Amino acid sequence: MHPEFMAVDWGTTHRRRFTIAADGTVVARDSDDRGILAVSDFPAEIAALRAAAGDMPLLLAGMVGSNRGWVEAPYVEAPASLAALAAALVSPLPGVQIVPGVVQRDPARPDIMRGEEVQLFGAQALGQLGNGLACHPGTHSKWIEVEDGGIARFRTVMTGDLLAALKARSILSDILAHDPGLDDDFIAGVDHALDASDLTAELFGARARVVTGQMSAAAAASRISGLLIGSDVRTGLGRSRADVVTLVGSPGLNARFALALARAGRESISVDGETAFIAGARAIMAAQTAGARA
Amino acid sequence: MHPEFMAVDWGTTHRRRFTIAADGTVVARDSDDRGILAVSDFPAEIAALRAAAGDMPLLLAGMVGSNRGWVEAPYVEAPASLAALAAALVSPLPGVQIVPGVVQRDPARPDIMRGEEVQLFGAQALGQLGNGLACHPGTHSKWIEVEDGGIARFRTVMTGDLLAALKARSILSDILAHDPGLDDDFIAGVDHALDASDLTAELFGARARVVTGQMSAAAAASRISGLLIGSDVRTGLGRSRADVVTLVGSPGLNARFALALARAGRESISVDGETAFIAGARAIMAAQTAGARA
Repeated sequence: MHPEFMAVDWGTTHRRRFTIAADGTVVARDSDDRGILAVSDFPAEIAALRAAAGDMPLLLAGMVGSNRGWVEAPYVEAPASLAALAAALVSPLPGVQIVPGVVQRDPARPDIMRGEEVQLFGAQALGQLGNGLACHPGTHSKWIEVEDGGIARFRTVMTGDLLAALKARSILSDILAHDPGLDDDFIAGVDHALDASDLTAELFGARARVVTGQMSAAAAASRISGLLIGSDVRTGLGRSRADVVTLVGSPGLNARFALALARAGRESISVDGETAFIAGARAIMAAQTAGARA
Repeated sequence: MHPEFMAVDWGTTHRRRFTIAADGTVVARDSDDRGILAVSDFPAEIAALRAAAGDMPLLLAGMVGSNRGWVEAPYVEAPASLAALAAALVSPLPGVQIVPGVVQRDPARPDIMRGEEVQLFGAQALGQLGNGLACHPGTHSKWIEVEDGGIARFRTVMTGDLLAALKARSILSDILAHDPGLDDDFIAGVDHALDASDLTAELFGARARVVTGQMSAAAAASRISGLLIGSDVRTGLGRSRADVVTLVGSPGLNARFALALARAGRESISVDGETAFIAGARAIMAAQTAGARA
């Protein structure tokens, strides 16, 4: 049993914090835009958090532990277990610990994650993931193969980042001003991308469909979402034969990926990313206590 | 024979103009940033061009004929011949003609071009392209199948646009601040993309290679260029068995695509895009004169 503590999901632009009681109850939660880019004095920031919430242990995860953050928490190498992660926490101040990310040093397919590892072990602690395949959809979707209860291999697909870049500055900007639907046009995009590998042509094709009057701009936005998520799912599944994929993310994004996985003939389980983060933070604290005792 | 005229390649952000004598000599050339987005009064703009260069016929091509330009010159349907293009010129003012674009109304693969059709027929007039496959590399690369001397089918791949979007606003921005080389890292990216169809994962992989110390940021920029151009070439070639591809574009971009085509086992002929534009403008003027006579 570990005492009350505060878990902070500290990203590049956003920060979410949760005060978690010894029995797992979340007694306070808050989110703001004090991401690492907005913070220069981290000790002062920690003091402010403690002044607001009380003096308690802090567990920080995400980009706060990157070389752009406060203190670099060196990556743990995959395959990576919960115990390995808990043993590699970095403490920049008394009572403050930073969760390291995970690195895959395969020369043919190097990859990195920082933050998703907490959610992954959280989904496991919630009983939503045994050995098998998990997907964290998002800016940089992570597809994680779990073996022996740990992170065996993983792959990042930069779907959300690509979509945001195209929305901000490309011939598709006008189309992408529309919110994509979860509709037949989305499904048609998914189906195309699951079968074919001509994404960079089909993206322009969505615009050609609008210009030729075949499709409204709103429908084209749905198609583009389907093309990108279908490509993500095709790439993320790779050669995996997993019948069921555990999705760990926001409910809205999980729903899009669940539909795409269904089109690929796979079932899915949806786990809320925030819930998974809280459970993962508790699991890491518990594993660390167990490790210290051992 | 047609008299001296001015050909204007009038795009979204840039404008290039050439005064072409009856014998084909380019007697004046100029370029500026008076693209269609910078112009509101087109008749005044034409008057200014004539005041500077003399009173002569004008042939305008590119986005000036789009629904965002001066006057919409309706697309000619593929398959499209040079004669069909010349017969569909739109004249918004006496002595001013706008070249229409080409549309492909295939419901499974609609596509559009506006501007490349002039270069395509120019490459043909220069004797650099018979029936076969042409590629116009660029913001929106066009792969054009030529049959019976005309544009039979084509496909757009938004390689340059995607690269610019990723450079402006994505996790790859820092890497893409480096100019890509035409080197082994470029070739490795091309080779990967010719074989595999995991572009959106491999793009992030370039960053992972930098973070894990496997590659410098400059090398990763070369790899990303290779991944994007390799994908472009794989998609553009499709099922074509063309042994030789005619590249019509800037010398620098042609060289990158020529190398990628070589890795795909294809030869290529490089035609300078500006030279092709001038030859194409002459061919359209000549075809129109012939058409009017017939």
